[in-house]
Amino acid sequence: MSTESRVLHPAFRQKIMSAEQAAAHIMPGDNVGMSGFTGSGHPKVVPVELAKRIEATHARGEAFRISVWTGASTAPELDGALAKVNGIEMRLPYQSDPVCRQKINEGTMQYADIHLSHVAQHVWFGFYGKLNVAIIEVTAILEDGSLVPSTAIGNNKTWLDQADKVILEVNSHQSMHLHGMHDVYYGTQVPPHRLPIPMTHSDNRIGVPYLQVDPAKVVAVVETNSSDRNTDFTAPDAESEQIAAHLVEFFQHEVKLGRLPRSLLPLQSGVGNIANAVLAGLNKSSFENMTAYTEVLQDGMLDMIASGKLRHASATAVSLSKKGLKYFEDNIEQLRSKILLRPQEISNHPELIRRLGTLSMNGMIEADIYGNVNSTHIMGTRIMNGIGGSGDFARNAYISVFMTPSIAKGGNISCIVPMVSHVDHTEHDVQVLVTEQGLADLRGLAPKARAKLVIEKCAHPSFKDQLTDYYERSLRESPGKHTPHILTEALSWHQRFEETGSMKRG
Amino acid sequence: MSTESRVLHPAFRQKIMSAEQAAAHIMPGDNVGMSGFTGSGHPKVVPVELAKRIEATHARGEAFRISVWTGASTAPELDGALAKVNGIEMRLPYQSDPVCRQKINEGTMQYADIHLSHVAQHVWFGFYGKLNVAIIEVTAILEDGSLVPSTAIGNNKTWLDQADKVILEVNSHQSMHLHGMHDVYYGTQVPPHRLPIPMTHSDNRIGVPYLQVDPAKVVAVVETNSSDRNTDFTAPDAESEQIAAHLVEFFQHEVKLGRLPRSLLPLQSGVGNIANAVLAGLNKSSFENMTAYTEVLQDGMLDMIASGKLRHASATAVSLSKKGLKYFEDNIEQLRSKILLRPQEISNHPELIRRLGTLSMNGMIEADIYGNVNSTHIMGTRIMNGIGGSGDFARNAYISVFMTPSIAKGGNISCIVPMVSHVDHTEHDVQVLVTEQGLADLRGLAPKARAKLVIEKCAHPSFKDQLTDYYERSLRESPGKHTPHILTEALSWHQRFEETGSMKRG
Repeated sequence: MSTESRVLHPAFRQKIMSAEQAAAHIMPGDNVGMSGFTGSGHPKVVPVELAKRIEATHARGEAFRISVWTGASTAPELDGALAKVNGIEMRLPYQSDPVCRQKINEGTMQYADIHLSHVAQHVWFGFYGKLNVAIIEVTAILEDGSLVPSTAIGNNKTWLDQADKVILEVNSHQSMHLHGMHDVYYGTQVPPHRLPIPMTHSDNRIGVPYLQVDPAKVVAVVETNSSDRNTDFTAPDAESEQIAAHLVEFFQHEVKLGRLPRSLLPLQSGVGNIANAVLAGLNKSSFENMTAYTEVLQDGMLDMIASGKLRHASATAVSLSKKGLKYFEDNIEQLRSKILLRPQEISNHPELIRRLGTLSMNGMIEADIYGNVNSTHIMGTRIMNGIGGSGDFARNAYISVFMTPSIAKGGNISCIVPMVSHVDHTEHDVQVLVTEQGLADLRGLAPKARAKLVIEKCAHPSFKDQLTDYYERSLRESPGKHTPHILTEALSWHQRFEETGSMKRG
Repeated sequence: MSTESRVLHPAFRQKIMSAEQAAAHIMPGDNVGMSGFTGSGHPKVVPVELAKRIEATHARGEAFRISVWTGASTAPELDGALAKVNGIEMRLPYQSDPVCRQKINEGTMQYADIHLSHVAQHVWFGFYGKLNVAIIEVTAILEDGSLVPSTAIGNNKTWLDQADKVILEVNSHQSMHLHGMHDVYYGTQVPPHRLPIPMTHSDNRIGVPYLQVDPAKVVAVVETNSSDRNTDFTAPDAESEQIAAHLVEFFQHEVKLGRLPRSLLPLQSGVGNIANAVLAGLNKSSFENMTAYTEVLQDGMLDMIASGKLRHASATAVSLSKKGLKYFEDNIEQLRSKILLRPQEISNHPELIRRLGTLSMNGMIEADIYGNVNSTHIMGTRIMNGIGGSGDFARNAYISVFMTPSIAKGGNISCIVPMVSHVDHTEHDVQVLVTEQGLADLRGLAPKARAKLVIEKCAHPSFKDQLTDYYERSLRESPGKHTPHILTEALSWHQRFEETGSMKRG
């Protein structure tokens, strides 16, 4: 199929223009909703041209910054390009770009870190102000004006509905075989008009395979031919494999006790190398007919579909390595009946996560002995990426698991600390902690029992004595013995790292 | 109606015995599920007899402790009596009893502080172990064996279903007019068999007005005649009235901007004097035809029903002052069509809270400048009460509000601090903070903008300079400028209070 034929509706064909011309529609101070989720389905060329325009405007001594709202993380040619030219005033709801991170942490870019399930509805409610422009990548514009979504849906439905002006990037690099893989639910309402969302199993189709847009709002159509971010994964290392083994053993134990069905419950997995290793572990396990209700379909899940272990996966984005992408494209016809891509207000909806009862497995930066989890901040003050959907899933999951290697930075950081330096998931939301050392099942335990178990099962041997010492002195010295702490010491491990480069006591 | 006639089914009549005899069915180590929510509908006599038995057993040098699971808080004759004799090994999911609090904080009683919406399902899932005995207060046992619930439903459905043995307290002090006010939903399932909960408005009736129990499990029926806790409220003080005024003004502003309907959305209100003052403020406001979807119907809401401002209230418990109770009993016929009492897995269900879009107003102990909220711990280590349903509501509300006077302990404590000493609601879940000083609308704001607003609007003048000084020095000295902190100082205000009795700098 040629590039030409991807814009099949005449009204949209008339709007075809260059990325530079399209970028001219964006004004200083605009709130701009962009497609993109985990490096997939983001606009590839308009943001780059916009960055050039911003740079030129700044060079003339004039101000030009915008607010960038997305699904989740994007790629260097979006977040990176705009951050580099200091073009982003405010970024929400999630990012993982190194340039953005630097600007946010040096204090020159604002970042609102928001539960991914909250974003769309907060925009419908008018909480973040007017959305001026949407820039949305699609795979094709069909004869009737329907939009075939790209490799991620994210908040695209909301951006297309809410924006005053719409710019479409039609990316002929995305496979036309994606057509039919999407399920866009148009039944959402604002209270008091909301109805139950009619999904009872993760493979239910409840919407339509298209996005819709009012053609009158479309100010530009830009034809592109570019690949997604397609980050490669590292092969699972020994630590990740140990984490995976602990989790598989735990699930087997739960099945044995009758607390989980034999084919488990829908899997939700965060992204990254540890998550991929866990999926690889599940792929080698004895479980069959598994399902997934998750945000991102990454390589590990694709492997599970290929092996037949995973019967069906629901997600909002496909984010694959180059190798994974090749398999995806080569097998897309068979895969289509096994994958559904949904808007993120559906993939992350508390109602659905709770109803389906996901097994939610997310990475973290650190946990404390009482089971509070920090997913976002390095040493309490620097943002890493953001909370993403981890809160949507952890709170509503059947079982909520957080995992990390027990140490970082060559052993100078313990990922199990007396008190986390920032809380994203409270003790009330964290049921299971896993490191390569072991798994702590915290369900139904009071704080002191949690502390003993977390130190015993999850801490690295090189920090165990130091943690035990803190806990035992807290037991004696803490004014309250419900959650014993020594307030002058609780954050001293992080402070010591900032000062000496290690959390280890001298 | 005489006491005799409250047990109308013959099989249950045969089980009538004394509280002492009934208490003999409870064994050391048992997990015991008791009725009771905010001092309402708890068993009045069996726990007292159990406490005597435990005390006598301890006097003989033998061990006797049980785990007590409830709906929420109970009363001195349950939590107090059992805690006093060191009879509680583990308490969940919420308490507010002074003796319990003391035992928990001295480290001799374990307490698991759990989201109220999580408890029932975690018991169905088997996460907390076997429920051995249920002790449930009811208003009557009808001819067909149906149970007319008491003034609180809480987790009673779950305890009756899950327990091996059931003890019923039939309290003839509760009005028979309660009959018909309850709505017990029996359609819950365990994943993967869950269906949408068929409620679209807070006044929908989706269940039956009875609780059911397998008569074969009932080991004892005890007849009682005792009142609920019926705590009196203080009249709203100036500070509470200021908090109420800020909130009413905020809601009026939101209506004006079209972000809230004119009759608002279903109100959820925490319990206590400030909450009552806010309800009194709404009762005096121009809003009409309001509804409530909340946990506890307290005096403030009853006044709103009486005035006609509140069209309908859904709750899981009725917890009134003596004066409120008199009004309730005198007018119960008219009130019945305006009040529904539901199991707490329904009153607090994330699916329903999000669908209905509640305006959630909860008290707190302290907030920090970045909008994290501590609802549970005094100075980071001592439990006050527990998180209760505040997390269920805050996360899923249309707008989530936390409120407190800006100072406590005669001005020695600032309720706005650099960093909260314990996090129950993260920055991601807190949208509006209110003190008597003002209201901070944090929606869509990045951390530094939040900090400026919280200090400006919510802090007490006597702590404003100290907070500003901390924040400005953090801006300069913090390694990361996303959430600027000085880790060595972040918790120093609490430490200073422990050492000097004041958070004020010397």
